[in-house]
Amino acid sequence: MPKISPLAPASFPSIPPVAGVRFASGAAGIRYANRTDLFYAELAEGTTVAGVFTKSTMPSVPVDFCRAALKNGEGHARALVVNSGNSNAFTGKVGAAACKLSVEATAKLAGTDVNHVYVSSTGVIGEALPGDKIVAALPGLKANLGNSDWEGAARAISTTDTFPKGASRTAKIGGVPVTIAGICKGSGMIAPNMGTMLGYIFTDAAIPPAVLQHLLSKSTERSFNSITVDSDASTSDTVLAFATGQTKHDPVFAVGDGIFRDFRKKFDEVMLDLAHQIIKDGEGATKFVSVSVTGAQSATAAKKIAMAIANSPLVKTAIAGQDANWGRIVMAVGKCGEKADRDKLAIIIGGVKVAAEGEVVPGYDEAPVAEHMKGSDIVISVDVGIGSGKATVWTCDLTHEYISINGDYRS
Amino acid sequence: MPKISPLAPASFPSIPPVAGVRFASGAAGIRYANRTDLFYAELAEGTTVAGVFTKSTMPSVPVDFCRAALKNGEGHARALVVNSGNSNAFTGKVGAAACKLSVEATAKLAGTDVNHVYVSSTGVIGEALPGDKIVAALPGLKANLGNSDWEGAARAISTTDTFPKGASRTAKIGGVPVTIAGICKGSGMIAPNMGTMLGYIFTDAAIPPAVLQHLLSKSTERSFNSITVDSDASTSDTVLAFATGQTKHDPVFAVGDGIFRDFRKKFDEVMLDLAHQIIKDGEGATKFVSVSVTGAQSATAAKKIAMAIANSPLVKTAIAGQDANWGRIVMAVGKCGEKADRDKLAIIIGGVKVAAEGEVVPGYDEAPVAEHMKGSDIVISVDVGIGSGKATVWTCDLTHEYISINGDYRS
Repeated sequence: MPKISPLAPASFPSIPPVAGVRFASGAAGIRYANRTDLFYAELAEGTTVAGVFTKSTMPSVPVDFCRAALKNGEGHARALVVNSGNSNAFTGKVGAAACKLSVEATAKLAGTDVNHVYVSSTGVIGEALPGDKIVAALPGLKANLGNSDWEGAARAISTTDTFPKGASRTAKIGGVPVTIAGICKGSGMIAPNMGTMLGYIFTDAAIPPAVLQHLLSKSTERSFNSITVDSDASTSDTVLAFATGQTKHDPVFAVGDGIFRDFRKKFDEVMLDLAHQIIKDGEGATKFVSVSVTGAQSATAAKKIAMAIANSPLVKTAIAGQDANWGRIVMAVGKCGEKADRDKLAIIIGGVKVAAEGEVVPGYDEAPVAEHMKGSDIVISVDVGIGSGKATVWTCDLTHEYISINGDYRS
Repeated sequence: MPKISPLAPASFPSIPPVAGVRFASGAAGIRYANRTDLFYAELAEGTTVAGVFTKSTMPSVPVDFCRAALKNGEGHARALVVNSGNSNAFTGKVGAAACKLSVEATAKLAGTDVNHVYVSSTGVIGEALPGDKIVAALPGLKANLGNSDWEGAARAISTTDTFPKGASRTAKIGGVPVTIAGICKGSGMIAPNMGTMLGYIFTDAAIPPAVLQHLLSKSTERSFNSITVDSDASTSDTVLAFATGQTKHDPVFAVGDGIFRDFRKKFDEVMLDLAHQIIKDGEGATKFVSVSVTGAQSATAAKKIAMAIANSPLVKTAIAGQDANWGRIVMAVGKCGEKADRDKLAIIIGGVKVAAEGEVVPGYDEAPVAEHMKGSDIVISVDVGIGSGKATVWTCDLTHEYISINGDYRS
């Protein structure tokens, strides 16, 4: 692994077991020797599942497979297998055969149907996945199933990540406590539409598939689809949520149920926590940047403007250089094509209004803003001044290290 | 100036005078001392003009001014004044006053109306333009008017450019030779919709304003609007074409006239030559990259796919690393949202078919492709396989030097 991101948390969080989820990770030798690269989980009978996938028109084989499983498996799941080291994307018939091989082995091991198996692959594009290595490694993982080594699981699904990513919350449904635990990976090729990131959320709550899908889709928009490292979107992005139903509580019938409110809030928190960890591990990142846009014509316009700022190489290099270069923010707002009025735009950096009404704020003192730019948490706010649409997205700076990582690593 | 781009031409081209165009450049001390930063040109009576400007919703003051002049001046022009060092963008009333001041001084000096004066500013955003410095420097330039120092003119309008940019061609209209000469600047904040680039084309041909505008708009699409350094688009981008009518030839009534064919061809060549020079001076560039897309649903779709490839940080860093990473090209095609079929896509690098029908070409030999990636001219072709739309765009690689330039320089 490359050196650990300066924005990494001090340690992996403490994540409790989730009733109905048993898992293990190990080294299958898919691309590198002596590196864990395989995660296998078994899910209790009755587990429901929801999924959100890359919008790429060039999806990987496992993405195709999961989409079909969601359709054919009636929203139920019994096993999950994830490998790193190879994305099994753009691999044609050979890749499809390798996926089939490992899915069938997984189904057999878990004693279930292939339509209740979920699979993800992440890593290099366009090389044949050695499915036989996965098949050979699976029995060893089955023998080691446990419920607590979330950190090991998070490491096994990582590629260029510099730290393992996990988060959890406890929520109450009708007074009964349930657990929500998640792991994810991702640090490059991250953009809206889910740049190369994989995320898995597990809960012991009982949630019907349609409700879980609705919840996951909405939550993804505000979390994983609101982050960007480099505007590039992967062929393999996948977020799956599994609800084992092992904890008994009053039934949930719809996302809007009052009984479900606390769960939704905590679920969103886990999703956002994980998404932020991906940004904090953004390739070469030294700054965690929040970009909030208010006063846009609509929420969609606000998000588009925020993303234009967050994806601008000139904005991102300025942040890397600790330069409060608000002119480049103006440029980014201007280029994105959403309705805006130069003479109503306001730019606030680190809480200080820098520019408004088409020019720099009279008597603008750069000192506190320059100080803010030296920190590792950068907060940029833009008020477009023409409507009530708002959105927040998160990104990181663009540094020499990004170039080094991506000029060498073949992804 | 930073060190000269490794892709720079050996020397500035030889560009002949254009009858009816007299110009000079000098140092007004706008941002830096001892650096030429002002270009002034006088145009013969009867000169027609056409303009294409940034699509940014945050245009600079001079862009607003030129748009109004095109409308109010009935397509005629008598003077052009361009400064570097300050873009006069996002400068509010102070900026508008500074622009007015220098335009009025220019009009007086050239003995014309303000609606026949064209003005551009390039450089830092959001700082008040010292219009008085321009006014003070203009008489000195007037005293030095000449018709041959195109290189000096190109240098005066430059910002982070590492070499001056110019091109010319001789064309025939009805058997009569006419000259087309152009200069431009730009190296960062370059993207479709005209990233910070300024371009000025002069000819002694007689071309009605409407014909000149039609020609310029069309030609810009295939040249300056088909290049991208970093996907960022500036607030100040401007291309102006001036036709002095000093050479007598049979009249041109429409862009489609047979008599005009050779001129159009040569005009396009000058525009493309200049646009390519901007890419060759792309901030930090070490490779000139051509991206051609064929077989898309439409020409618009083809250009969007080509731009998605050309703007992808992962593709661009791979090129910098001399890595024939076609998986990232697949990713970029997939993310852009235009219709594509994974199993029909073909990728050709340096003339070698690398991937087709959803997988790497059987028996693919990477050696010749790796060799191609070591060169400074990289040619990427993608056939989408579903239609007949095609487009070519040009870009450069993304290197450490780009980060260095933009983490320091305040634009």
